[in-house]
Amino acid sequence: MLKTGRLYGVGVGPGEAELITIKAARVINDSPVIAIPKSADSSADGRSKALVIVEQLIALDAKEILELDFPMTRDKDALLASRAKAAGAICLHLKAGRDVVFITLGDPLFYSTFGCLVPFVRQAAPEAVIEAVPGVTSFCASAAAAMMPIAEAGESVAVIPAAYDLEDVRAALSAFDTVILMKVNKVIDKVVALLIETGLERKAVFVSRAGWSEERVVTDVASLKGEVLDYFSLIIIRKGT
Amino acid sequence: MLKTGRLYGVGVGPGEAELITIKAARVINDSPVIAIPKSADSSADGRSKALVIVEQLIALDAKEILELDFPMTRDKDALLASRAKAAGAICLHLKAGRDVVFITLGDPLFYSTFGCLVPFVRQAAPEAVIEAVPGVTSFCASAAAAMMPIAEAGESVAVIPAAYDLEDVRAALSAFDTVILMKVNKVIDKVVALLIETGLERKAVFVSRAGWSEERVVTDVASLKGEVLDYFSLIIIRKGT
Repeated sequence: MLKTGRLYGVGVGPGEAELITIKAARVINDSPVIAIPKSADSSADGRSKALVIVEQLIALDAKEILELDFPMTRDKDALLASRAKAAGAICLHLKAGRDVVFITLGDPLFYSTFGCLVPFVRQAAPEAVIEAVPGVTSFCASAAAAMMPIAEAGESVAVIPAAYDLEDVRAALSAFDTVILMKVNKVIDKVVALLIETGLERKAVFVSRAGWSEERVVTDVASLKGEVLDYFSLIIIRKGT
Repeated sequence: MLKTGRLYGVGVGPGEAELITIKAARVINDSPVIAIPKSADSSADGRSKALVIVEQLIALDAKEILELDFPMTRDKDALLASRAKAAGAICLHLKAGRDVVFITLGDPLFYSTFGCLVPFVRQAAPEAVIEAVPGVTSFCASAAAAMMPIAEAGESVAVIPAAYDLEDVRAALSAFDTVILMKVNKVIDKVVALLIETGLERKAVFVSRAGWSEERVVTDVASLKGEVLDYFSLIIIRKGT
């Protein structure tokens, strides 16, 4: 009987090709099918950044690239339908005995579409083994770029996905030693105003595209007010700095 | 004139040798001196786990291993004195033109001694270039071991270093989508009681030594009550699971 393929969710790190793990490179190399979310993490040229990383290390000629469509929508039904469809496309390969590697920037279980896909794959192919290969997150790479510790022993950390609700950010700044504000680009003016108000603007560092050629580190975050910022932007505020 | 060496803080990942990045392996390979905290992260045999990872990949014969003493104390003066002494030992090498790689489990700027050392090295050798190479954190590896997402888009995450103050944990469980309790071994009974009380015990997963041969994943966290647990233990609670 044909053995069902395995699905791997593989983190390829934050953007620098060398920040992929040895395990991630091996698993990708051994797999005939590479699944990527269509242009969700695109570089300047519109290509999947995760794929750009991988092709610097691994020959892709003999591999099938499976592009999966994940629309950027808040329509719950459309979202669920797209995930079911993507899982279906993956399961066709698994059921034909082919391993599939879903590559993702950063870590596959920390803000990645891979986590959303897993329940659908489990439903469509319950016999398939699913495995995750962890990766270096963007916030660890950003801390390295800024040479600013995220936390030392005994310190608590809050990671806030996008600072839409400033009151949540205010509460986190009060209760936690370090606050990481992901995807801060859309709300930079409000965040800067809050940091100035709370006297924390000198404890903050802004990093965008850590490890990419476009990497940018800004310690004077107040200077960012009014700027149009990159989508891959975050701010780390560490009170003990 | 002799060029001052560089100091690298290098994350070697959570414990599985293959989860080191290509960059970390290269930087360690290129450096003549490897600094390790004395037995702070020891394996069953009392050896530095970070060094055990590295020697599976890199020949260490020609390298100098610089053991640094970081006493486990709450005495602030003793702590600062030990860091100054460790920085002094590192700077002797840097000033002699030798690069030093400080290896650390996980990531060098997320709960690592490296972050504490940096200000002392900057003071003792202001001319030295200091660089961090990020690594895979224990919580990402634990999520992979448990195949449980830490967070999906839009979800917030709290990382609490050790659950000494249960009220902080209670507040985090209420305000955040996901809570990661690090080093949970000493307070497991109180944490389990809180999870049962808040109805979250089925949303939690316990992982110790993710990626090590001793790795353990427990989804029925209530069963852990009263157990003597490993030091490298954490619990991930994700409400949306």
